[in-house]
Amino acid sequence: MWPPCGSCWVREAGARGVRMSGHENPFDASPLFRQMTVVGVGLIGGSLALAAKQAGAVQTVVGVGRSEASRAVARSRGLTDRLAEDLVSGVRGADLVVLAVPVREIVRLLPEVAPLADPACVVTDVGSVKGPILAAGDVAFPDGRFVASHPIAGKEQAGPAAARADLFRGANWILTPGERTRPAAAEKVAALWRAVGARVLRMEAGWHDEVFATVSHLPHLAAYALMDAVLATERGGERIRFSAGGLRDFTRVAGSDPVMWRDIFLMNREPVLKVLAGYQEALELLAAAIRDGDGAALEARLLQARVAREELVHRS
Amino acid sequence: MWPPCGSCWVREAGARGVRMSGHENPFDASPLFRQMTVVGVGLIGGSLALAAKQAGAVQTVVGVGRSEASRAVARSRGLTDRLAEDLVSGVRGADLVVLAVPVREIVRLLPEVAPLADPACVVTDVGSVKGPILAAGDVAFPDGRFVASHPIAGKEQAGPAAARADLFRGANWILTPGERTRPAAAEKVAALWRAVGARVLRMEAGWHDEVFATVSHLPHLAAYALMDAVLATERGGERIRFSAGGLRDFTRVAGSDPVMWRDIFLMNREPVLKVLAGYQEALELLAAAIRDGDGAALEARLLQARVAREELVHRS
Repeated sequence: MWPPCGSCWVREAGARGVRMSGHENPFDASPLFRQMTVVGVGLIGGSLALAAKQAGAVQTVVGVGRSEASRAVARSRGLTDRLAEDLVSGVRGADLVVLAVPVREIVRLLPEVAPLADPACVVTDVGSVKGPILAAGDVAFPDGRFVASHPIAGKEQAGPAAARADLFRGANWILTPGERTRPAAAEKVAALWRAVGARVLRMEAGWHDEVFATVSHLPHLAAYALMDAVLATERGGERIRFSAGGLRDFTRVAGSDPVMWRDIFLMNREPVLKVLAGYQEALELLAAAIRDGDGAALEARLLQARVAREELVHRS
Repeated sequence: MWPPCGSCWVREAGARGVRMSGHENPFDASPLFRQMTVVGVGLIGGSLALAAKQAGAVQTVVGVGRSEASRAVARSRGLTDRLAEDLVSGVRGADLVVLAVPVREIVRLLPEVAPLADPACVVTDVGSVKGPILAAGDVAFPDGRFVASHPIAGKEQAGPAAARADLFRGANWILTPGERTRPAAAEKVAALWRAVGARVLRMEAGWHDEVFATVSHLPHLAAYALMDAVLATERGGERIRFSAGGLRDFTRVAGSDPVMWRDIFLMNREPVLKVLAGYQEALELLAAAIRDGDGAALEARLLQARVAREELVHRS
């Protein structure tokens, strides 16, 4: 069992989850890791490479890039100390491997990384679905060296060109350690996330996936479906040109990478289908009230939504 | 029949509707109206009062405010030359009456205004549903002095405190004249909207209602339902605290006035139910693809949504 509390885990009963605070001092001059290998030098991987180096939290950063194009951008921006084309040369010598690739790739790479990594190497990820990744990590690293992790950081732009050292400053970074995860490994990873400016929170992986199905995956589905529905109307392209704020608010999320989101929806299948069913029900209740001309029911539901919105605004 | 083209109506075959350009010169020193009475001194009515006066397009502005509170704000901000508590004293002497109240109020007030207004007085409105308002206006003013109109202007804040003279600068302002509407009345109203900086477009009322059901009313419903669905999940209040960009993009519209939107949804019932059914279908197609693990179908739909989004972004 994961210790609920200890010398270097402080439970805070806040609603944001359990905040983790370790004994490590982020201002300590000695680096936390000798060699951090970031697999995937996109927005998250590239930003982490820059931020960790800048904070003095790692000695050497090695990047693994699958495409020549992204390696070229990473090289020209100096995101890492060294760039590798393949896992074998990239993972060699690392005491931390960060899988910063789309969720399905993370699951695919975990068993490939395991035989290449040094016996004491800690492995972590940045995927936005945690249950299946934690399960795959526990299989690949039965000794508990895999630490499942998810930074809540802006992702509107993608790729190494968008990487920046301050991406994680003030952001929440969630760890979802399982029963098998070694506390020492999780603590070290948490210390690195804190060193790059993040606030580290701990959540149970299943609850994480339900929460993010609700506050992130569902809004993306709602936005994608809205654009699809608008486009499917008669003379849809003409209608779209009259859009003002209402439709535009949905714009950003519906512009996200379709392949990345396809994999998130499929990997977080059950929680996503559950909240999606709830959404379909909420829409049907609104439709019924409009159909029946039931102004009182309609107003009550709109008012309730506004109250939820105010809660969202006021807490930030 | 409304003339498709004439000395002072220029049809432009652009997809944004038919742009109206009249013979009036907005830089003409003589005011277009002697007395403009604005019924409702909220964001739209108050802004129009300020803008029309500032442009020298009207000689005197009279405001009618139903509540002492809004009249007090309007008075302290000097939005109008005179404030009236009731229609009788407000409408008297006006050669233009602008109904700047929620859509259901517009329909209710039209027959009340008719016997109070001077025989040559032009009447217009700013409601975001046009078919039922045009029908009610044609009944109240069988001689065609009612001009149905809809400014596409920001409405996140409401009330006279939010009024500003530049609200309509660069905004689209749609006129939906019917067969009965007098061209001369519509031209004069169009000239006023242009004088306050708007771009005047002409649309058929039924098409207007379908277009705005799609690009405005549906996104509002989608946002309200999303907040309702999130709130209805187990420990919903706790989940909401983890929301980042995705859910926040829906925030603004779900914060709109529930009573105003209840009336818009009910008044634009058929077009709203039609696009809502299309949205429910689009969501069900996404749900089915996730349920079946059909990655290809899922990706195709997400990609299509992204293309629609790019169309939205690039045209602006």
